[in-house]
Amino acid sequence: MTQQVRDIGEQGLLERLQRFCPPEIIGDDAAVLVTAPEQSLVVTTDLLIDGVHFSHVTTSPEDAGWRAAAANLSDLAAMGAFPIGITVGLGLPGDVSVNWVERLYQGMTECLQKYNTLIVGGDVVRSPVTTLAITAFGQADPHRIIRRSAAVVGDAIVVTGVHGNSHAGLQLLLHPELRQNLNDAEYNTLIKAHQRPQPRLDVLPILWEIVETLHVTSLHPVAGMDSSDGLADAILQICRASGVGAVLEHRQIPFPKTFDSWLTEEQALEYALYGGEDFELVLCLPKELADVLVQHLGQGAAIVGTITVGSKVLLHDKHQKFPDRVLSLSQGFQHFSQ
Amino acid sequence: MTQQVRDIGEQGLLERLQRFCPPEIIGDDAAVLVTAPEQSLVVTTDLLIDGVHFSHVTTSPEDAGWRAAAANLSDLAAMGAFPIGITVGLGLPGDVSVNWVERLYQGMTECLQKYNTLIVGGDVVRSPVTTLAITAFGQADPHRIIRRSAAVVGDAIVVTGVHGNSHAGLQLLLHPELRQNLNDAEYNTLIKAHQRPQPRLDVLPILWEIVETLHVTSLHPVAGMDSSDGLADAILQICRASGVGAVLEHRQIPFPKTFDSWLTEEQALEYALYGGEDFELVLCLPKELADVLVQHLGQGAAIVGTITVGSKVLLHDKHQKFPDRVLSLSQGFQHFSQ
Repeated sequence: MTQQVRDIGEQGLLERLQRFCPPEIIGDDAAVLVTAPEQSLVVTTDLLIDGVHFSHVTTSPEDAGWRAAAANLSDLAAMGAFPIGITVGLGLPGDVSVNWVERLYQGMTECLQKYNTLIVGGDVVRSPVTTLAITAFGQADPHRIIRRSAAVVGDAIVVTGVHGNSHAGLQLLLHPELRQNLNDAEYNTLIKAHQRPQPRLDVLPILWEIVETLHVTSLHPVAGMDSSDGLADAILQICRASGVGAVLEHRQIPFPKTFDSWLTEEQALEYALYGGEDFELVLCLPKELADVLVQHLGQGAAIVGTITVGSKVLLHDKHQKFPDRVLSLSQGFQHFSQ
Repeated sequence: MTQQVRDIGEQGLLERLQRFCPPEIIGDDAAVLVTAPEQSLVVTTDLLIDGVHFSHVTTSPEDAGWRAAAANLSDLAAMGAFPIGITVGLGLPGDVSVNWVERLYQGMTECLQKYNTLIVGGDVVRSPVTTLAITAFGQADPHRIIRRSAAVVGDAIVVTGVHGNSHAGLQLLLHPELRQNLNDAEYNTLIKAHQRPQPRLDVLPILWEIVETLHVTSLHPVAGMDSSDGLADAILQICRASGVGAVLEHRQIPFPKTFDSWLTEEQALEYALYGGEDFELVLCLPKELADVLVQHLGQGAAIVGTITVGSKVLLHDKHQKFPDRVLSLSQGFQHFSQ
């Protein structure tokens, strides 16, 4: 019979999970971490509830763990911070299998290891619903913090990669019949985009090197956030926090090529703008920096628009196939005000 | 009608809760905090579930908030760390009243303000069960970290205050008829000990001043933890982590005076050793330091025993009313091996 959490208890489970944590850090009232001098501490937290944010049914425990860790590391990347460690609070019903929990931790640590970070502490408790509380810690040069509120009129808006893949992957998992439109490689790319999203911590050293080597006139702090809640949301949040507007050019938004075979142009745009969970970075910076950054990043990185005066975020189509549209936070794509 | 969480949504609730957070810190992907140079980062996390760790029924939301914050600050104190801030992840069913949530945050911030710290970030999500995930982070001089594993044979074991008050307060709340044994002041002291426990961050500057001014021979790092899971648990955990034993003297364990009127001697000992949630510190340090520390702390601080070779924790009664007993982690007081 499958061993359940209630069979080994909280203490027994903690002992099983210790192999995912560095032994020199755990085992006391709190974890002690060494931070680099002259760095600011950056902290972010997420609470994930079974049935709301992940599903025992459609998500493997490894993928749920990976995605939870990736989302928090992406929040750090969005601030310009490199991860130091995460804490994991886990609430579990007694009938969850021990194997499920170990696989969840396996997925988390796989993601963390890729970015040289660790689980440094946690808590395991009984709960009627499986609950995952992650707090991620990072450090950043205080002069290189990326804030939502720093966008300036004239900035180019850069996306670090294509958008819509993760949502497409989810749709393929929910509606297997859609697979017939794609070959295996295309299918696997979209599924992986959903199951194993990559926080874009790799962008930071590239960005800072460009900022340092290019002597840009009128350089201001880079503005940005991640696109975990969708590309439209990211741009709208940045504009709101910075007190500016934006014009996006429909034809510059990079779509996955594989969308052509099974989505209309309108659907593809909806996936890209509102799909969410692509965990790319959306950055606002002077055009001359943006050009070099996009060139260095490749792989779907693009300038998708420009920061403008005002507060509206306009979507423009230079082919004039679609009329100009105003994006809004509260309304999804289907409720566009025209 | 009482406004419920579902009436205003997650975004609406977040806006209501922003008044409990410093505006310059929240509103981005993560919080940015300045830490002191040369300090280590200390991190601790707790997950609290309605019906398991607190109750909508017997605990006011202010007290639940205070206790949750206090428990995490106590973990920092137990490491020798001063708090920088906490993050709060909150999972809520739609039918929780907005007022309940605001009162919970009120209780948390009351506790935090007393210790000059803040809520610096968080997450509010939908959940079938009210869930509170707190991560507290602090900073400590790396040479003054208090670890469970640092106890040395011959150390005096200091408690920073009386034990059993919190459990007594809980019993009085659960069994109102017990109140008849106490006057109002006595009753209120015990209730408050349960509802508003005080993390002993105040002990740290006193401890360090004594360590600095007294030139103790053979000084080693101070060992210790907090007594959140009971005094017996704290001593047993320290002994296990340090590879040592201990002898406790029954007559040196400080009991609340108010126990005499309604508890047997055996019950009083049980409350003190196993009651839990008193959030005092249990420290192991050279006798000459311990004497000065106890004198400075007053208010129930006492040397309750000595660290010995071996691994057993013995409870000795110099009046020989009780036989020597061995304390154990897995068994409560009622299951003493004799």
